[in-house]
Formats: sequence, C-alpha cells, structure tokens
Amino acid sequence: MTTSQGLQDRFERNVVFEVRVALADGADPLAAVVSAVRDSGARVGRMELAGTDSPPLIYAIQVYAADDEQMDAAVEAVSAVEGVEVLHAVDLAMESHRGGACELRSRSPIRSNTDLRIVYTPGVARVCKAVQADPSKARDFTNVANKVAIATNGTAILGLGDIGPLAGLPVMEGKAAIFWEFAGVSAEPVLVDTYDADEFIFVMEKLAAGFGAIQIEDVKAPECFRITRELDRRLKIPVFHDDQHGTATIVLAGVYSALKKTGKRMSDLTVAISGAGAAGTAIADLLTAAGAGDIVLCDSAGTLHRGRTENMNPEKQALAERTNADNISGSLADAMAGRGLFIGVSQPNLVSQDMVRSMAPDPLVFALANPVSEITPAQAYQAGASVAADGRMMNNALAYPGIFRGALDAAAECITMEMMMAAADALALAVPEGELMPEMMDPQTHRAVADAVRTAAGHTSK
Amino acid sequence: MTTSQGLQDRFERNVVFEVRVALADGADPLAAVVSAVRDSGARVGRMELAGTDSPPLIYAIQVYAADDEQMDAAVEAVSAVEGVEVLHAVDLAMESHRGGACELRSRSPIRSNTDLRIVYTPGVARVCKAVQADPSKARDFTNVANKVAIATNGTAILGLGDIGPLAGLPVMEGKAAIFWEFAGVSAEPVLVDTYDADEFIFVMEKLAAGFGAIQIEDVKAPECFRITRELDRRLKIPVFHDDQHGTATIVLAGVYSALKKTGKRMSDLTVAISGAGAAGTAIADLLTAAGAGDIVLCDSAGTLHRGRTENMNPEKQALAERTNADNISGSLADAMAGRGLFIGVSQPNLVSQDMVRSMAPDPLVFALANPVSEITPAQAYQAGASVAADGRMMNNALAYPGIFRGALDAAAECITMEMMMAAADALALAVPEGELMPEMMDPQTHRAVADAVRTAAGHTSK
Repeated sequence: MTTSQGLQDRFERNVVFEVRVALADGADPLAAVVSAVRDSGARVGRMELAGTDSPPLIYAIQVYAADDEQMDAAVEAVSAVEGVEVLHAVDLAMESHRGGACELRSRSPIRSNTDLRIVYTPGVARVCKAVQADPSKARDFTNVANKVAIATNGTAILGLGDIGPLAGLPVMEGKAAIFWEFAGVSAEPVLVDTYDADEFIFVMEKLAAGFGAIQIEDVKAPECFRITRELDRRLKIPVFHDDQHGTATIVLAGVYSALKKTGKRMSDLTVAISGAGAAGTAIADLLTAAGAGDIVLCDSAGTLHRGRTENMNPEKQALAERTNADNISGSLADAMAGRGLFIGVSQPNLVSQDMVRSMAPDPLVFALANPVSEITPAQAYQAGASVAADGRMMNNALAYPGIFRGALDAAAECITMEMMMAAADALALAVPEGELMPEMMDPQTHRAVADAVRTAAGHTSK
Repeated sequence: MTTSQGLQDRFERNVVFEVRVALADGADPLAAVVSAVRDSGARVGRMELAGTDSPPLIYAIQVYAADDEQMDAAVEAVSAVEGVEVLHAVDLAMESHRGGACELRSRSPIRSNTDLRIVYTPGVARVCKAVQADPSKARDFTNVANKVAIATNGTAILGLGDIGPLAGLPVMEGKAAIFWEFAGVSAEPVLVDTYDADEFIFVMEKLAAGFGAIQIEDVKAPECFRITRELDRRLKIPVFHDDQHGTATIVLAGVYSALKKTGKRMSDLTVAISGAGAAGTAIADLLTAAGAGDIVLCDSAGTLHRGRTENMNPEKQALAERTNADNISGSLADAMAGRGLFIGVSQPNLVSQDMVRSMAPDPLVFALANPVSEITPAQAYQAGASVAADGRMMNNALAYPGIFRGALDAAAECITMEMMMAAADALALAVPEGELMPEMMDPQTHRAVADAVRTAAGHTSK
C-alpha cells in the first residue's frame, strides 16, 4: 500500500461519534469494547479515560464509521458487551456545530466606563472622522481589511445540491472557522436568498463596502459565472468563487506535485475533465494558463465540442471554442483514451478501470467527486495510474485561507491566474516526501500560500 | 454637588490619550508631570509604572482631555518638565479600533484532520441535512439564533450626520463589541450602501435568513421609520431601530427611576420633547404607552400641532395628530412652560435656565443631545430641576444588549412596546441608591434586562 492509499483508508469513514461508556466495577471489558467496534466494521479513533473518581470507570471513545447504519451497529455491539453501559453516543459533527461554528467577538474586553468611551461614544467619533477624511484609513482602524464575505444562495451546497441558504449555513460557518483557524481571516457567512443572478449581484454590490474580499460559495452554474465575473468587474475588491478558483488551484497544485513525483512535463500532459460546470471550467482555464496540453471536457451529454447542440449554454459554448483542439465528439471514455491526466469533478463511479487503462502510460487520475469519487484511488492504481487521488486528499481548504490572507495583505483588487498559479506552486513546494499534497494542519502550508499570493499580487508587504 | 453632578464631571472629557514618559536617572519629576497635566486643564486617569529594568523609569499615563487642543497642551506641558522625555502620546480611541473592534472567530479550534472533517466536509453535510429536514434546527446547529445584523447606510452616524457607511463602520464595530461583551451576542455590522429606503429594505430582506434579529442603526429620519416598520412587517425576526426604540427605552427607564426618586406619578407628568426625528417620535409613543400625560414635540420650526404646514412630512403629520392635546403652537419655550418633564434629543444649548424655571415645580430635565446637550445637568439643577441628566448618563448600551439577548432567547418575532417597557422597568429596578441609571459594567444590569424582555415576550425559557 502506498502512502496515498494509506491516506485514502484513513479518510474513508464519514461519520464520527463519541460513545461514552461506563465499565462495571470489577470487570475489565475494555478490550471487548474495542473488538465490538471493530467487528461491526467501525473503527476506534481515540479512547480516553474520562472519569475516575469512583466506580464505574467512564471512557470516551471516538468511533469512525462509514455511515449511520454502521455507527448504530457499533453502538449496539458495544451495548451488548457484558459489564458495559453506553451512557451516550453523539454525532461529533452535529456537536461541533451546536450553537454555530463561529461567532463575532470583540477584539478587546470592555472592563470600565473608560474602555466603553474609547470603543464607543464619544471616542469612536474620532475614528469615524479619521476614516471620513481618508477612507483608506478604514484598512487600519476597522476590521474591513481582514474581512471576507462568504456569500451563497444555497443552490449548490457540497454534494447536496439546492438546499437553500439556511440549510447551507453550516458549510459557510465551517468555512469561516477554517478561515479563522488557518489564516486569521474574519470571514462572515452572507446568505443571499435569491435564485436571480442580478439580485445576487445587486445585494453584494450594496454590501461590498464592509468587506476586503468576497468568496462566492456553492452557487450553482451557470449563474455563478456571471455573478463572479460581474462582481469582480464592478468592485475594487477580489471576488473569488471557491468552487471555480479554489478547486482549480488545488488541482493545479496536485498536478505540479504529481509532475515532480513522476518527472512528467506539463506541456506533454493532455487532459480529460469530467464535469463542465464551475470547477471543470476553471480547471480547464487554469491548466491552459499553466501550459498544459490539449484539454477535453465532458458532461452528461458527452464531450464539449464545436457543433454540439445538446445541453449547451453560452458558457459551455465558449468552452467548446477554446478547448478540444481535435474537436473530439463522443463519450467520457472517448475523451479519456490516450490522455495523460484525468480530472473528475462530476459524479460517483463514472470511470471504470478499463477507461484508466485506455489512457496514456502511467496516467494521473484525480477523481474528485464528493462524497464518492468517479473511481477510487485504489482502483485507479490497480489500473496503472502513477498518481491517483480523490477529493478527500485534494481539499480546497489547503488553498483558500492562504489565498485570501495574501490578497488581503496585498490590498489586491482581484485574484489573478498568476496569483492562483503562485499558490499552486507554493502548495506543491510544501508537499512532504512521499505525499501528493501538503499537510493541512501545518501552519507553514497556509503561510507559504499567503506569501506566494501576496508576492504575486505585486506587493511584498502591506 | 449631587452624585449625578459628580457623574457629569466624570464624563466631561472626550479625548483619552496614553502618554508614555521616561524619567531621567536620579531625578524624580513625577509630581511635576501630574501638575503639568492638571495645569493644562487635562486630567490624569491612571498612571502606571510600565518599565523598571534599568534607568530610565517608564510611566504610562492615561490622560483625559476635553479636546485635541487641551491634549496637545498637556503633552507639551509634560515635555517641558525637566528630566522627562515623552516617548509617545497615542489616542486610545484610535488604538482600540486599530485592526477593528471585533472579529469573526471559530468557536472551537481545528487541531487535527478529524476536527476539520467534523466542522467541514464530510461531517458538515449531516448538519446541513438536519437543517434542511427541519429549518428550526438552525437555531441549535448554527449561529443564527445568536446573530444580530447591525445594519446602517451611514446617513445619521452619531452626531456626525451623513458620513457614509464605511466611515460609520467604527460605530457599528463598537456596537458589536458591546453586544458581545455585555450579552454574548454575535452582532455583525452590515453596511448597506444606498440612500434609497426601498433598496435598503430589499437588501436586508434578502439577507434576513442569516440573522435572528436586525438592529437598524444610524439611518436618518424619515427613511428609518419606513425601513424599520416595513422590515418588521415582512420578516419573522425582530427589527429594532436603536435610535428610536433603544433611546425610548432608556428615556423611559430614566423616567421610571426619576419618578421613584421624586415620588411623582407618571400620569401627572406632562412632557415637552425637543426633536421630532427618530428618537423623539419613539419616545413620545413609548411614554404614551407607559401612561404619561400630554406630550408636545418641537423641531426647528416649533411645536408639532394640527394645522402646521411648515417643514412637515407624513410622519410628523401623524405625530401632530396623536400628541399635543391642546394643540399648542409656538416655540420650544412655549412647549416647555408648565411641563413636568423635558426631553431633548435635538441640538446643543437650545434650553436656557429661564426655560427650565418656566416648567412645573421640580421638573425632570433629560437633555440628551450628543456630544453637547441642550442644557448641562449642572445648569438645569441650578434652575430648579429635581433630576437632570445628559446623554452620557443615559446610554443606549444599557438597553440594547439585554433587549436583544432576551428577544433572541425567546425566539421573538418582534420587539413590542411591552418588551421595551419591561426592559425600562428592569433598568429602573437595577439603579443603585443615589444614582439615576444602573451601572453599565455590572453584568447583572444586562441580565436583568434580558430576563425581563424574555419574560415579556411570553417565554420564560428557550
């Protein structure tokens, strides 16, 4: 098993529970508890003695499972162990979002009337006047230069689709938590309750004064293209659509990393992309800018090619014009034959091992559909891939915190292809030996991205 | 000097600096420094030995001054003391807003890939699905039930007027800091860049899903009336205009407190209000609901009365219909003659001592114009007021944190007159012996307001 396959296994389980058990006095059934979890197909993540004052002993056990059924089976199996009482079994994802994943706090305490008079009236009037006299002072004396709007209408939340902005809010809060933890950015979920792209643009334009940048998040295609493009054109702050630009940056980082591992060259790499929505479009454009070889995109109606009429829109039409040099028509299998790089941002299980075998020798296979990929890395390796990855390894959270940190610090007015390429390059440089992607938990990863983006923005400091 | 006059003096100085001085070795000029500050008309707030490692000794001195000129004079006077070097003199209001007064943070750390997978994908998908299946779960598993929008268009910022939303942002951030510190509420500044009431309403309506309540802030009259009313009508969350409802609540609390001190009765209290904008209108309505006697409002064109045509609008017209039973026309002096309570929410220095002398015996005088009141409490006392206060003593920050805490905890759909009256009553009950208003820094003040409002909302617990 390669390291990447090891990673794959580590990330396989989707449900994390804490099961709290009391062990009867005198008995020592802990090993039986561990066995019960394993035999149900789940896995112990961490086990900790949580209470020792008096019998019974209490253990908190973190259990990973593939789904709810497996989790229920594990809890039932633990309950059946002699001398064990299950005190509770809680879904840690739900618990971590209880009360929300983020909150807006004051940056310093208010302990006295003097503190109050400094942060609020009458002292604050001096700050207002300073900003009124010179609006650029808002960067220094408000939070605006560190503030990102995470704006969604809830139409394309994760793999869940159009669930509305409120049901999508936990995702936005999760992103805000990541922004804060990895890059010290104040990122504010902004729920814009509309299906209309013009209304979305109007609302965000009216709100823009309060932000240093906007991240468009989980807005479905094709509206996301016009929303992002139009806001970026109108506003003097960067507008970044994570599903387009974040994903493209991560894919490019993965490609850079894989090229280093395999000794292949970017210009030799022909590409098949499954998925011609936000992510597929942006990946095609960024790979083109980075010098990749010919690119063919596929959607559910087959390859995007000139002359195709089924299931087209102006965005796809333009994409068909600028990709697919040989104007290949046909299915995804036709698109993949002989190509050196497959990128999947589409649907589960679309790619067979035979399709991987039809690619150029030792191909790169990035099957990023969430939560189930187009083909598992294990299957892709078995079919001859030299590098294979899924969406769990290639997580946008490696890119966007540092990209925004760098863009905010540079007071950038947009996030350019050059900035995304610089971010991808920094990520590839940060990859530990034997891995495909850098370590998410290493603060240096995000700092490296921020530094590269700030420099690429043409500023080396604030 | 009464306690209230003592308070007045304590709040008299508007500028707070930290002056950091180095004292030359061997010399002991500290007393001379203190004298220099005092002789320049400023005042030492706090003095602290800040560095002792080696000569020179460093002292950090907090200096209060009336204005910049006085502060400059104090710094110059300190510099002139033999053996003293001024290291810096910084405006603490500016410093406390450096980088912003608030920030959006994660509620728990992300220390491992498991933490990440719990707060974000794939775990967060479970949270989204739970909210999708039952939207009321958003109260439990997002921050929305604890989230207030502080929405402004920057048209009536403090006493500064129409300075635009960005220059007004320090005020919104200051309010957000107060919300967090006094009530644990996540309050988000929302800058809506428009003069158009319909656009403002449209934007806030589209954003409302992300908030548990909206505080309209520093929007000028008359637009503020329709914005507040219309949003409150359309949305299932409370919409509260602090300049109207917060100010009215504080005034009513002050009236309740003054009635207790003086033994007067609410129904005997006839009222003259200077200012017929947001605050004046709401004060008139809340005092009427609370059972006060006849109320006359004045603006720059004199009393609001039926038949007046100059400088009217539909809001003022309606106000003239429901106040001023005897239809008094004339000036503010005419309005005040014989009245028991004066409330000023207008302009500096509009009220003379003779006008106070013309009121009913032992009148109550709340002259709340900021930063300079219609008449100082000292002058009002001298002219026979039994209770006198200015805007520094009657601070909205006593009311709105607890009001929103209570309304959010009750999941209230609006903030009613009854809830404001309950808040005012709770504030009056919390006033320490010999004071007019409760102690801002006492957490019990804000808890008492929250409890009263939650109960008045018809819920005793979440």
